Amino acid sequence: MTQSLEVRHHEADAPCRDDLVLDVDSDRLHEECGVFGVYDHPDAAALTALGLHALQHRGQEAAGIVSFDGARFHSERRMGLVGDNFSRLDVIERLPGPSAIGHTRYSTTGGNILRNVQPLFAELETGGFAACHNGNLTNGLTLRRRLIADGAIYQATSDTEVILHLVARSRRNRFVDRFIDALGQIEGGYAFVGMTNKKLIGARDPLGIRPLVIGELDGKFILTSETVALDIIGARFVREVENGEVVVIDERGLESIKPFPARRKRPCIFEYVYFARPDSIVDGKNVYGMRKRIGAILAEESNVPADVIVPVPDSGVPAAIGYAQASGLPYELGIIRNHYVGRTFIQPTQSVRDQGVRMKHSANRAVIEGQRLVLVDDSIVRGTTSRKIVRMMRDAGAKEVHFRIASPPIKYPDYYGIDMPDQEKLLAAHMSIDEMRDYLGVDSLAFISIDGLYRALGEPSRNAAQPQFTDHYFTGDYPTTITDLVGEGAKQLSLLAEAS
Amino acid sequence: MTQSLEVRHHEADAPCRDDLVLDVDSDRLHEECGVFGVYDHPDAAALTALGLHALQHRGQEAAGIVSFDGARFHSERRMGLVGDNFSRLDVIERLPGPSAIGHTRYSTTGGNILRNVQPLFAELETGGFAACHNGNLTNGLTLRRRLIADGAIYQATSDTEVILHLVARSRRNRFVDRFIDALGQIEGGYAFVGMTNKKLIGARDPLGIRPLVIGELDGKFILTSETVALDIIGARFVREVENGEVVVIDERGLESIKPFPARRKRPCIFEYVYFARPDSIVDGKNVYGMRKRIGAILAEESNVPADVIVPVPDSGVPAAIGYAQASGLPYELGIIRNHYVGRTFIQPTQSVRDQGVRMKHSANRAVIEGQRLVLVDDSIVRGTTSRKIVRMMRDAGAKEVHFRIASPPIKYPDYYGIDMPDQEKLLAAHMSIDEMRDYLGVDSLAFISIDGLYRALGEPSRNAAQPQFTDHYFTGDYPTTITDLVGEGAKQLSLLAEAS
Amino acid sequence: MTQSLEVRHHEADAPCRDDLVLDVDSDRLHEECGVFGVYDHPDAAALTALGLHALQHRGQEAAGIVSFDGARFHSERRMGLVGDNFSRLDVIERLPGPSAIGHTRYSTTGGNILRNVQPLFAELETGGFAACHNGNLTNGLTLRRRLIADGAIYQATSDTEVILHLVARSRRNRFVDRFIDALGQIEGGYAFVGMTNKKLIGARDPLGIRPLVIGELDGKFILTSETVALDIIGARFVREVENGEVVVIDERGLESIKPFPARRKRPCIFEYVYFARPDSIVDGKNVYGMRKRIGAILAEESNVPADVIVPVPDSGVPAAIGYAQASGLPYELGIIRNHYVGRTFIQPTQSVRDQGVRMKHSANRAVIEGQRLVLVDDSIVRGTTSRKIVRMMRDAGAKEVHFRIASPPIKYPDYYGIDMPDQEKLLAAHMSIDEMRDYLGVDSLAFISIDGLYRALGEPSRNAAQPQFTDHYFTGDYPTTITDLVGEGAKQLSLLAEAS
Amino acid sequence: MTQSLEVRHHEADAPCRDDLVLDVDSDRLHEECGVFGVYDHPDAAALTALGLHALQHRGQEAAGIVSFDGARFHSERRMGLVGDNFSRLDVIERLPGPSAIGHTRYSTTGGNILRNVQPLFAELETGGFAACHNGNLTNGLTLRRRLIADGAIYQATSDTEVILHLVARSRRNRFVDRFIDALGQIEGGYAFVGMTNKKLIGARDPLGIRPLVIGELDGKFILTSETVALDIIGARFVREVENGEVVVIDERGLESIKPFPARRKRPCIFEYVYFARPDSIVDGKNVYGMRKRIGAILAEESNVPADVIVPVPDSGVPAAIGYAQASGLPYELGIIRNHYVGRTFIQPTQSVRDQGVRMKHSANRAVIEGQRLVLVDDSIVRGTTSRKIVRMMRDAGAKEVHFRIASPPIKYPDYYGIDMPDQEKLLAAHMSIDEMRDYLGVDSLAFISIDGLYRALGEPSRNAAQPQFTDHYFTGDYPTTITDLVGEGAKQLSLLAEAS
Repeated sequence: MTQSLEVRHHEADAPCRDDLVLDVDSDRLHEECGVFGVYDHPDAAALTALGLHALQHRGQEAAGIVSFDGARFHSERRMGLVGDNFSRLDVIERLPGPSAIGHTRYSTTGGNILRNVQPLFAELETGGFAACHNGNLTNGLTLRRRLIADGAIYQATSDTEVILHLVARSRRNRFVDRFIDALGQIEGGYAFVGMTNKKLIGARDPLGIRPLVIGELDGKFILTSETVALDIIGARFVREVENGEVVVIDERGLESIKPFPARRKRPCIFEYVYFARPDSIVDGKNVYGMRKRIGAILAEESNVPADVIVPVPDSGVPAAIGYAQASGLPYELGIIRNHYVGRTFIQPTQSVRDQGVRMKHSANRAVIEGQRLVLVDDSIVRGTTSRKIVRMMRDAGAKEVHFRIASPPIKYPDYYGIDMPDQEKLLAAHMSIDEMRDYLGVDSLAFISIDGLYRALGEPSRNAAQPQFTDHYFTGDYPTTITDLVGEGAKQLSLLAEAS
Repeated sequence: MTQSLEVRHHEADAPCRDDLVLDVDSDRLHEECGVFGVYDHPDAAALTALGLHALQHRGQEAAGIVSFDGARFHSERRMGLVGDNFSRLDVIERLPGPSAIGHTRYSTTGGNILRNVQPLFAELETGGFAACHNGNLTNGLTLRRRLIADGAIYQATSDTEVILHLVARSRRNRFVDRFIDALGQIEGGYAFVGMTNKKLIGARDPLGIRPLVIGELDGKFILTSETVALDIIGARFVREVENGEVVVIDERGLESIKPFPARRKRPCIFEYVYFARPDSIVDGKNVYGMRKRIGAILAEESNVPADVIVPVPDSGVPAAIGYAQASGLPYELGIIRNHYVGRTFIQPTQSVRDQGVRMKHSANRAVIEGQRLVLVDDSIVRGTTSRKIVRMMRDAGAKEVHFRIASPPIKYPDYYGIDMPDQEKLLAAHMSIDEMRDYLGVDSLAFISIDGLYRALGEPSRNAAQPQFTDHYFTGDYPTTITDLVGEGAKQLSLLAEAS
Repeated sequence: MTQSLEVRHHEADAPCRDDLVLDVDSDRLHEECGVFGVYDHPDAAALTALGLHALQHRGQEAAGIVSFDGARFHSERRMGLVGDNFSRLDVIERLPGPSAIGHTRYSTTGGNILRNVQPLFAELETGGFAACHNGNLTNGLTLRRRLIADGAIYQATSDTEVILHLVARSRRNRFVDRFIDALGQIEGGYAFVGMTNKKLIGARDPLGIRPLVIGELDGKFILTSETVALDIIGARFVREVENGEVVVIDERGLESIKPFPARRKRPCIFEYVYFARPDSIVDGKNVYGMRKRIGAILAEESNVPADVIVPVPDSGVPAAIGYAQASGLPYELGIIRNHYVGRTFIQPTQSVRDQGVRMKHSANRAVIEGQRLVLVDDSIVRGTTSRKIVRMMRDAGAKEVHFRIASPPIKYPDYYGIDMPDQEKLLAAHMSIDEMRDYLGVDSLAFISIDGLYRALGEPSRNAAQPQFTDHYFTGDYPTTITDLVGEGAKQLSLLAEAS
Repeated sequence: MTQSLEVRHHEADAPCRDDLVLDVDSDRLHEECGVFGVYDHPDAAALTALGLHALQHRGQEAAGIVSFDGARFHSERRMGLVGDNFSRLDVIERLPGPSAIGHTRYSTTGGNILRNVQPLFAELETGGFAACHNGNLTNGLTLRRRLIADGAIYQATSDTEVILHLVARSRRNRFVDRFIDALGQIEGGYAFVGMTNKKLIGARDPLGIRPLVIGELDGKFILTSETVALDIIGARFVREVENGEVVVIDERGLESIKPFPARRKRPCIFEYVYFARPDSIVDGKNVYGMRKRIGAILAEESNVPADVIVPVPDSGVPAAIGYAQASGLPYELGIIRNHYVGRTFIQPTQSVRDQGVRMKHSANRAVIEGQRLVLVDDSIVRGTTSRKIVRMMRDAGAKEVHFRIASPPIKYPDYYGIDMPDQEKLLAAHMSIDEMRDYLGVDSLAFISIDGLYRALGEPSRNAAQPQFTDHYFTGDYPTTITDLVGEGAKQLSLLAEAS
């Protein structure tokens, strides 16, 4: 999952990263990607740009759009935000044609380089094929090793290229058959959107780990990661792509194919807890509502006498509102977020640093001073930022700080597309609740229980035999074999083994 | 208040502004400036950068810092955000020395050009003098006209340059006397920070319209617009600079001078309602708390049966929380803000535009559908954005929309540094409440009363004889003569008359 | 030789190309590439940067360097000049290791995009392989078509990628055998430099159409296009790589392999006439000296009574000096070149344009007025710029203009790596000498004869049975079959047929 | 002549200037400025851009254009080349109106910052006034000191601002009278072009040290530094502005005013030797012809047995041609210039550096090896580059190197606008001819005599009583008093004294 060729672009204005500098925003999970595709609409590229903008929370590093104008494919791929790159008329005009697919990404596998920005494109014998996906293949390195041995050349380092190679090398004749042939060889979690000169195609992994929905605008089909990308263009939500389903959209309409044996779905629970936008509908449920319910159950499970409920903005807000409503305690903005961020400042002296200078958050002292706080956040990853926020609350005069977390402790790594620190850096992987409480400096610490979380999402409780969600980061219960950890992939390529 | 020389810099990636494009964020009042100065601290420039970052909400167009190293002045002035320009070690290292002043601005008078970015600098006979201010001179054009007639040359177009000229031309010997001589000639609202090779100097207009506070860090004095700029560096709030006060900070400490007859203070009420950051302390009062009280009084004055309280993010949030707590109705995030903004997208077709595509806000349908909403915002300026938001609520299925505004109707222009549209564009200047209600498409519309607003800020009511606040935008009761509208300034300079 | 996927990057400051604009520098032949490689030298990347800078005249569009540090490959590829991108310490430091190869290019095949900038890289089963070349494969499209049918995926569009695929798919075991296997399948003119984790490898096409030389610095081997790239780093010229030779450099030294039947060499004659730098030694001969001899023979073949010899700068200078010395007429700078170029200006009115405004050249009237000129240039391609220069000479008062060209008429297209306009745009392809004379507006026009040119280069005359040089652009006598014009390549890929 | 306020702009891609880096192009004199103005032509800004491009050799650091559209002035000022900034339609369209003035500069006084880029602008009581000049005021600092004492504020640091202040403060009524009033107070060498809302105005210093010519296009007047700026737009040369003359161009035509007592002209002789473009006509004489005559006289004065004449490109070319023609020896390109320059490369090792790696010049060994060379250059300043070029000739096998210089030894500093190193760095200021010969490592060294130079320019010899040219750099005979060295300016401003 590394690369031997590093194309390191000079970044003219990268912030200085010496010991004077503290990056206080590094302790979040990052979603990896958002996808969007539209078939046969006169404004395909403009709609795709809008859809990707609505999915910007799923990846801020780079974005790309490929359109097909009936004869040629056109591509624009850029580092940076959708709004900075795809909001201009001249860019949209360079993407003509009635079909387009697009992708916004935070890099997981594959380096931070333009070459890796999706959609990727390949000229196949059957014609051009553009493709992108959200997720991660758990046998990607194994397949890559096998393909290289067979003479395949890799230019980029993303898993999408693996899929392109498998399609290109399939011995089937029809494109859809080739694509299904390829899908049969890959493992992991993925939501895939591709486009040929005739079709828009989507696919979701057998367990439906990563999300993909179908929408409709002006009678034309759309495939995308979240319903918010439909809302922004006024499109109608049709249904989710089912786990293990392949959808093929062409001039005859939408065809559903289920090429593999049926399995029960098991979507990634972190979509509900953290990734999806609050106004998205995931699996028929409003995300904001679920997060509020998580807060309410958290209040039930671990209520504590307090004066005020304070969310860690912005991710802790819905759970804090839910907690406040369930507990009857007042919800207050005890932490103010500075929206003008993006850079890490020089922090001049130890004394200033010790006082907990924060660029992104500041304490609203009038709300905090002398109060017993319930501080609500969505998760604890490394705990470094949480610790600073608690310190900031103490400095602002909080009498008590009770920390409530809207997810269970994160203890295990992810292999399905979530950018997570190494396991040894996960606070909950090597500390007990009490140790964490002491480390964070709070008066009490509580996480929602795993069953509480399942209840908030509408299940009676976790079915240990057949869990309803992918939740290995909490439980260690991985939904698939991780072939790359045991098979050929684990041996690594000779050069790649030493690559960064 | 315009300029005859336009230095228009090419903006390589300015968004296309044709009729396909809708700028939904244009309907806000804009604060004009934030100022910061620190005397004799080893990290002067780094502290100034941090302070300006905390004041970023007061102006996002440009920022500048001037430092003095004991022998030379150094200046860095840049278009764009503080964090994008002043967070790097190399930039801070180009600003050596123990004293520094800085400025962040949204242009009001003076064009959008680097030449106008403050602080400005002048070589006086007494030595170098760097200066910046927040506010606007109401006799600036009159003075400019008089100075030009007397042979003065203007390079920039800001009022700060007027002050520099008056200081340069004063016949007094000591610098402080020259500065007071200059202050005696200007009118308007201003919070001024300047620096010579020996002193840091601050001044606030006779009515204290614009804010200025004194802080202290490591025994060294700081002057700045809001207390949040003290909080970010761990500095202690000492006191406000009083209306009409001049403070002179040098090696002997801080000297307070009151060169003019005492007057009752009359700060700009919009600092409380809109400009100041919620966690700032203005005039001894927490802004967040005052805004919540405004919401509570609004609930008292114009309560209505409803199911849910929805803030217009982010400015309407504190008042909405206050309204919800006072009314006992649930506070819910009915509108989700997309934080990845900055650019206006191409909106492809009329149908998409008609559906109210919005880049910055989206409706959280699950909260809204079938509900009676109380929508809370801080103000209505032109009403264009408000109307779209209401439409978005209706499209999301709101049963009723009751719009509650945390300020009285804005009917009159400002001349003291607030960037406001022309009076004919102010919705409340030419519509009755009922007309506005119909225009906005709401079921009911209410503004807080002027007395209600005064009560929220701790006054029993507005004292019509001697109003406690500057509030002409609501009342038409201007706190000073606007000399430029009646004096020499009104005649305009021949060329300037035709300038944009 | 086109691409179906266009990744068109927005160029923020591209000059406006409307009808007000005249690009007076468009009528030159362009060389396609320069290559450089060095093995086992501590300053590999810095030496490569210097070498590419000396080869800048062979391609100004983009450049790239790949280094190998013993474990990892590192790559930097940039649009623009070598000096603008590879002169900085930080860039060189991102290219660590004792071996490096580099490439500077003017695009011929492959679009103008970063993805196509060489060297390209592939992870093979035997390890990493970086490669670049100068030249063009005349069966590149045929091979590409065949490889795609066999499941290969193309990311870039250059011929170098074809070679990578052939090496990757070879069934031989040793890398060198795979490489020779690949060479056996390609046709055309090429000078190739590649690098694995153990070797530096070079190859020249069977006829030696494109140049490649071997140098030595501090006992370490270098491969590069021209001797000037050796001179700039103080390296010693060892010998040319022979036509059809493969050289393999590794820790054991340099091994020469001649895998294919021996053929007589036939280098591209345009290297002598136009492409190589005057101070290069090509095939043992100083280029400047040969160009002077061309001028001298031109004077013999087509002398004319005149007052002054005027070169068209800079390419006509050596031949003009030779002509002047042979004819005894004075050599004068009648045309002054403005070195500050690079952009095409707006030319406001027809009257200005008609007067022959020129950004790059101006007439030195004092030398020209009333004189009979012999104007010497290296070639005529479209004739558009020549015509303007003649017009400029007339406007400056020239009494007679005799145009002498240091190459025979260019009538036929090239398929070996020279960027040439379509045949219908070649002036000599559709006009007789007399017609050209009239079109250009000169009093007389003469080209060097083909035998005269061969004599200038040291041959008695052209051997029609076995021509000593590649000279099809003059004679139509192509040195190889152009498979892509007759084979599978000619059928084109369906999509590619419509690509630009 | 310094500044106390340093606005140092971050230069993202400045070359590394450590000891690994050698800037071989630093040993040239630099001209300071070129000016251009046009009145009442529909393409004023486009013509100005073209004119400045033709004057690019007079200053490559920055350029600016101000236009007047009948109501408003418009300004564009940019760091960098004219062609990089003013060749685009959108930039020209931001400069509407029938009158424009422009300036291209190499900084002499005034720091390297946008604020100092001319034209400058001032709003006067009589209306707007834009101005720029080429040259230097020798009482500029004295005047600045006096004006500051009188309350003037300086924003920029150029002498042009001094003139603006003097005009602004004049007590005369009419603009032209004010301007003449200002001219009466300044000393030094200058060619001035200004523009009001009614007039284009030009002025040349009393001795005509700096050049200024009048041209005409389509019946409209043009003022500019050299005739090449007329040639590029097809304009007709009318005449030179005379020394001490003021020309006022308005709707009534051109008025010539000579406000001061007549003096004999004394133009800067370096315009002929070095600054002016070879195709310019200066004082009625073709510059190329004069430089050839200098070469011919040099051959007479200091001929030497040799095999070949080699110019140091490009500045030594005309004198070398003249030398070759006069001596009958062959002119050959022994040094090849790499036109792709602009950056200084990392030079990796001492061994590479010792071999004289040169980025800009290379030896054409075939011409040099075993030959006796006469190397011809225009001047010796510090001698550092000359020494390297001689070394390069020796390394290439030159048998003898005879160095001939087309100007007398430069011994004294300039105060009239030429950017020259400090006197102690001028080689001829502290070495005899023999010492210089040894230092440079040549077999013989000769400079043209001062009388020989005068003869080449058409004078019988130098008139010591009334020298026909400004030539103090050779003779120490300054044409004016240097007030700033003896008057108030010499005392310096307190802060400025310590500024860089």
